[in-house]
Amino acid sequence: MTKGVTQGPSRRRGRRPGGTDTRAALVEAAREVFIEHGYDGATVRVIATRAGVDAAMVNHWFGGKEGLFAEAVLKLPFNPKELVDRLLDGDVDDIGARIVRNFVTIWDNTGGGVFTALIRSITSHEQAAHVLRDFLVKHIVGRVLNSVGPDRHELRATLVGSQLVGMGMVRYVAQFEPLASTDIEMMVAAVGPTIQRYITGDIT
Amino acid sequence: MTKGVTQGPSRRRGRRPGGTDTRAALVEAAREVFIEHGYDGATVRVIATRAGVDAAMVNHWFGGKEGLFAEAVLKLPFNPKELVDRLLDGDVDDIGARIVRNFVTIWDNTGGGVFTALIRSITSHEQAAHVLRDFLVKHIVGRVLNSVGPDRHELRATLVGSQLVGMGMVRYVAQFEPLASTDIEMMVAAVGPTIQRYITGDIT
Repeated sequence: MTKGVTQGPSRRRGRRPGGTDTRAALVEAAREVFIEHGYDGATVRVIATRAGVDAAMVNHWFGGKEGLFAEAVLKLPFNPKELVDRLLDGDVDDIGARIVRNFVTIWDNTGGGVFTALIRSITSHEQAAHVLRDFLVKHIVGRVLNSVGPDRHELRATLVGSQLVGMGMVRYVAQFEPLASTDIEMMVAAVGPTIQRYITGDIT
Repeated sequence: MTKGVTQGPSRRRGRRPGGTDTRAALVEAAREVFIEHGYDGATVRVIATRAGVDAAMVNHWFGGKEGLFAEAVLKLPFNPKELVDRLLDGDVDDIGARIVRNFVTIWDNTGGGVFTALIRSITSHEQAAHVLRDFLVKHIVGRVLNSVGPDRHELRATLVGSQLVGMGMVRYVAQFEPLASTDIEMMVAAVGPTIQRYITGDIT
């Protein structure tokens, strides 16, 4: 599948030395390859080849394919692997609270504009929506559910996604008060039990 | 405040006879006046004057200001007054289920494109977001909460909004499976208890 990836005539095929130049080249190549082949179809090898960079640099700079995708395509302000480790570190009965606390803390700190840009890319590019869905369901919420979810992981993952996306829409995009200014721990108290039930509770 | 509303030179000032022409003129005038003055600042009298139509026609065609707003600005595929009456008709302990069932039924029947258009207008026009917030919080969820909500009506209303908007985003805009194809009664079972808690439960 990946053998036939075309490279434009302007692409460098030689290896580049490490450094910020390498990093930027990987981000640029990754954006193209992920959009062309989807998350699962894209390989680190193809991305590195297109960037003219050693494949080991992907681990070095981004901690793997997920991290490169999160930065290059989603422009997420966090490393997904580290985030999932943080979410799983603690009592299972508090995982809903930890998810809400991390979500609101990250996006409050990043500023609503970045979240709004993410939502715009979902609403205007069908391809972006599908790639994001695959990524979120399998590699963020999916990893959490594989550790602690009882059954129906994919439905649970999309339910969690629905509440988090909606919370972000109301807090950062539409900025509906009072939710837009409600402090983090009050958000955790209000929304944490919803996420907890979607992950470990009875949903049928 | 509304005295100074300007009328373009092309506007008709004379009364029009009733009929679909009147209806269309009201929708056109309403769109302008609501955007200029917001939901609360706009009056039926000013809209009717701009349309060159008797103010009684607003009640006749739209059942009042909310109905005109829902159709002219939000292009909602339902009459908000009738919807709220339907939601309030039944056991308070099932209101979360009724809200989810009505939400999914209405938008499944309308087609996802209309919901996507609504979300796009929120993400690209700050004014549209504020007007929508006022309308939803005060005149739809607000009316429900005035009947059955214990306290913190505005926070509860925005929490309900967050889950409904997110459910619509995942089901109609991003179309994340399996939630996008989950049947209505399974959605009611999964999301109904969330909405119920946001309306009548302990959220702190």
